[in-house]
Amino acid sequence: MHATEKHFRLVIEYDGTGYHGWQRQPEDKSIQETIETALATMTAGRRVILTGSGRTDAGVHALGQVAHFSCDTAITAEGFQKGLNALLPDDIAIRACTPVSPSFHARYDAIGKTYRYRIVNRPFPPAIGRCYAWHIRTPLDLAAMDRAARALVGTHDFCAFEGAGSPRASTERTIFRAEFRTGEDGLVVFEIDGSGFLRYMVRNIVGTLVEVGRGRRAAGTMARILADRDRARAGATAPPQGLFLVCVRYPEEPQPSPATGRSPGSEEC
Amino acid sequence: MHATEKHFRLVIEYDGTGYHGWQRQPEDKSIQETIETALATMTAGRRVILTGSGRTDAGVHALGQVAHFSCDTAITAEGFQKGLNALLPDDIAIRACTPVSPSFHARYDAIGKTYRYRIVNRPFPPAIGRCYAWHIRTPLDLAAMDRAARALVGTHDFCAFEGAGSPRASTERTIFRAEFRTGEDGLVVFEIDGSGFLRYMVRNIVGTLVEVGRGRRAAGTMARILADRDRARAGATAPPQGLFLVCVRYPEEPQPSPATGRSPGSEEC
Repeated sequence: MHATEKHFRLVIEYDGTGYHGWQRQPEDKSIQETIETALATMTAGRRVILTGSGRTDAGVHALGQVAHFSCDTAITAEGFQKGLNALLPDDIAIRACTPVSPSFHARYDAIGKTYRYRIVNRPFPPAIGRCYAWHIRTPLDLAAMDRAARALVGTHDFCAFEGAGSPRASTERTIFRAEFRTGEDGLVVFEIDGSGFLRYMVRNIVGTLVEVGRGRRAAGTMARILADRDRARAGATAPPQGLFLVCVRYPEEPQPSPATGRSPGSEEC
Repeated sequence: MHATEKHFRLVIEYDGTGYHGWQRQPEDKSIQETIETALATMTAGRRVILTGSGRTDAGVHALGQVAHFSCDTAITAEGFQKGLNALLPDDIAIRACTPVSPSFHARYDAIGKTYRYRIVNRPFPPAIGRCYAWHIRTPLDLAAMDRAARALVGTHDFCAFEGAGSPRASTERTIFRAEFRTGEDGLVVFEIDGSGFLRYMVRNIVGTLVEVGRGRRAAGTMARILADRDRARAGATAPPQGLFLVCVRYPEEPQPSPATGRSPGSEEC
């Protein structure tokens, strides 16, 4: 490691509508590459690698994605935040930039994440905020969905909710909280706190919960899918535009209680 | 009037980002023309004129714009709502379509409107919802802004807050309610109920209130501007993307109390 290298942590908000997800790809526009390009501009063309807490898929948003990078630079954390916010397109914002120890790793050190999924449940489509919600016309049985969601809490093998072709050493995860709340004008917000999430896990869970809400499955189906670990039994994948990575937690930070776990980010985007 | 002509009222939600405002224009895309084109498609090419409760300017949104049209047609109100929502682009949605008496006029019969203006007050810009708010970096003194806003309540001559080049018979309007509330993540929501609004009036009021919030004007300035009727004393016009026409009220409808006046539309878009 270079003697003058400095290490930074970013908290990033982004509107995923125009991107093919977080991760750099050869052909398509990604959040990671867009920020790396801005970092290169700020550091006289140095190749700066940005490591995120995990990927988000195409069209998925973040209120508090976390990433780290190292750079031999005289620029301060405040300088990076201001400079990046000036350089980045307006669908990506740096909420915070802080100096961190060289040992900090955004992915390996993460101990928990919160995701939020927004549904607009009403007969007519939402024009305002249509890029931030899944529109479902038919009235959902929210009580049944909430009952089904509570079966997720605890430590389970979530392989039934993993996207196809996503090999992992372990598919066991712990869910601390999974609940619905409702807002005005048909808004239904699902929020889930967990130790970690498999690929497509939140969207597959939401897709299954919506089938419960539509009366196509009993509320008890969730516990049975988990017990059977049967991918074929889970519901369809919910569309990406309703999903938000709300925050990523690390050991040195205060742990959220259910009442305060919502930050950062207004629940109604 | 044709014997089989039917009359309908629409309640319309739209994201004004991609439009040059409500009103039809020779060159630019408008909300009115876009809906009229969809109505023509539904009615075998008939020229259907849509009359709104009033204009909204380029970039301004609506949760509950009201308009009426008449048409010699066999299509029901429900048929128009479904058909229009299928034909219209996804930034315009028909919240309701109801049959009305031939005498109903969306503009002349309106007795009140509610507007909402959304500000995001925090150091870094909002990526999520950036088309639905004015981002202000410097901390605002919300108590002073709220005090200043309350001076608007009552019947006043609002000519100081009218846009230049907007001749009107009378510039007197009555404001029933004008207040701020705050949300998570720097959200500041201004809501104003009135008998009617002059062109640019809400945006000019918000621009002036923000100058109070920045400490550039005293909270008492609002009352003085109203008393002096001096256009030159009002603040700059707030940008359009924070403004929402929330609803339009008509005599036959129940009047909102301050507690219930928010509908339709979730306050946090």
